[in-house]
Amino acid sequence: MTIMTSLNETYFIEKRRKIEHLLQEVLPSTTTPPYLLHRAMRYAVMAPGKRVRPILCIIACEVSGGDESQALLPACAIELFHTYTLIHDDLPCMDDDDYRRGQLSCHTVFGDAIAVLAGDALQALAFDLLVKAQKSSSTVNQKDYVSELAEIASTCGVVGGQSIEIECGEKGMTLETIEQIHFMKTATLFKASARIGAMAGNASQNQIDCLSAYALNLGMAFQFVDDVIDASDRSSTGVTSGKKKRHEFNSVNILGMEVASERANHFTLQAESAIARFEGKNKQLLIDFARWLLKRKS
Amino acid sequence: MTIMTSLNETYFIEKRRKIEHLLQEVLPSTTTPPYLLHRAMRYAVMAPGKRVRPILCIIACEVSGGDESQALLPACAIELFHTYTLIHDDLPCMDDDDYRRGQLSCHTVFGDAIAVLAGDALQALAFDLLVKAQKSSSTVNQKDYVSELAEIASTCGVVGGQSIEIECGEKGMTLETIEQIHFMKTATLFKASARIGAMAGNASQNQIDCLSAYALNLGMAFQFVDDVIDASDRSSTGVTSGKKKRHEFNSVNILGMEVASERANHFTLQAESAIARFEGKNKQLLIDFARWLLKRKS
Repeated sequence: MTIMTSLNETYFIEKRRKIEHLLQEVLPSTTTPPYLLHRAMRYAVMAPGKRVRPILCIIACEVSGGDESQALLPACAIELFHTYTLIHDDLPCMDDDDYRRGQLSCHTVFGDAIAVLAGDALQALAFDLLVKAQKSSSTVNQKDYVSELAEIASTCGVVGGQSIEIECGEKGMTLETIEQIHFMKTATLFKASARIGAMAGNASQNQIDCLSAYALNLGMAFQFVDDVIDASDRSSTGVTSGKKKRHEFNSVNILGMEVASERANHFTLQAESAIARFEGKNKQLLIDFARWLLKRKS
Repeated sequence: MTIMTSLNETYFIEKRRKIEHLLQEVLPSTTTPPYLLHRAMRYAVMAPGKRVRPILCIIACEVSGGDESQALLPACAIELFHTYTLIHDDLPCMDDDDYRRGQLSCHTVFGDAIAVLAGDALQALAFDLLVKAQKSSSTVNQKDYVSELAEIASTCGVVGGQSIEIECGEKGMTLETIEQIHFMKTATLFKASARIGAMAGNASQNQIDCLSAYALNLGMAFQFVDDVIDASDRSSTGVTSGKKKRHEFNSVNILGMEVASERANHFTLQAESAIARFEGKNKQLLIDFARWLLKRKS
């Protein structure tokens, strides 16, 4: 592996800044009613997130030959969607998490009812922005952002994965089940992010296919890295590092740190091979992004 | 007013049967995982509902000159969306309702976590079906089903209305606030149902405009009738008729039975005037539908 260039790290961080700038604009104002709901939505979305999925969306657009501006709005829609899933996952009836993104979780501040509604509204707003982005797209290609998200937003994707996690509990979880959950909850949204970005950049079929496979593997790697970071945090700072969690589902608890880290490496390498046949400019961005996510500490 | 013809009542009931037939088909199977989630979704959707919104969608299509087959799939998407809002409204942190549509509510049977997820999945599935219906539409007109739903699914519509209800509580509610909540929670989805149906039937602008105004007023009337029925049930069968509700929000408690009934009549008349200028076939269907909803007992 080559050493990560500081140039591309700056590039990713610059994209994050632009995404957060647009998120501020597309979220409803806290000076219009319903005030509490709007405050809760902004609180959750504007918390310091990594913005991995929207950055991936923009990278996919750019490496396919498109301009950042074509992907920014759909990228923000994806972040709104992702935030909705975080809010609902944190609810007391679900994972019961008091903290998220370094601050009190949405329901802890605004109450369970408003948190449920904030999640609901963010899902709807994500579809609203996607359809607006689709309509305002100046290119002649058939864009299908809404389908891409809708297909993985229901029971075969994000929500289905969370449901299987709850149905299974931690007992009797195998590597296969863990990877199925990571695939459904995380990898499918990574894939949709990359495909939407690629479409925004008028990608060829070769580009869309390569980026889909890249993103699926990247999502798997990302989730295993997340589990490793979470487990390390807990073991170094005490049992729960200020969190209480009802469902302690973490692949490290089941597979051990070594296997989970190995899976993260494995999927990162798979992501890199997926773009071996990718025809496009600045392919190095994709490689650097995968390594950046692998090496992150938080 | 003329006496309701039995012919049109049969017509409405026949539409309901067809809607329920297609709902069975579009819902994910309980023999594929995630089993519990799929069971919860089917349990909530297939409960004996009135199917008012999807019937309205089909009527709007037919009076605009379209065929029922063009509106059936989007009509089912609307019913899935509506059911998601019911599941979330019934949650313990929200209205805390043990019963819905004559059976135990979704969270009472499947637990809060699965109920939240079933609602989430149904919202996503609604958008998925709408985009599929839009794509498979054989007509040349620009269909925009997804926009119609997305616009009213977020904070200025259904979710916003529920949020204002929670923020306000019952104290200090005025007629104006009540009507704002009824407008956001109910009338906007009636409007979207009618507009989507009209578009499915290739409606003219005159038809779309008239049907929008008709549906908004119909939704307001429907909600006041609902409140009256609910209040009558409670006063005749005991305080809660087998229900426990944390938020007893009902316009009858604030305005009294007489005023609520008067508002229902008022909005039904408004709905009828809205279609005075409607150019289309079988306008009587719209009038009969409004009167059918006004005179219902459950």
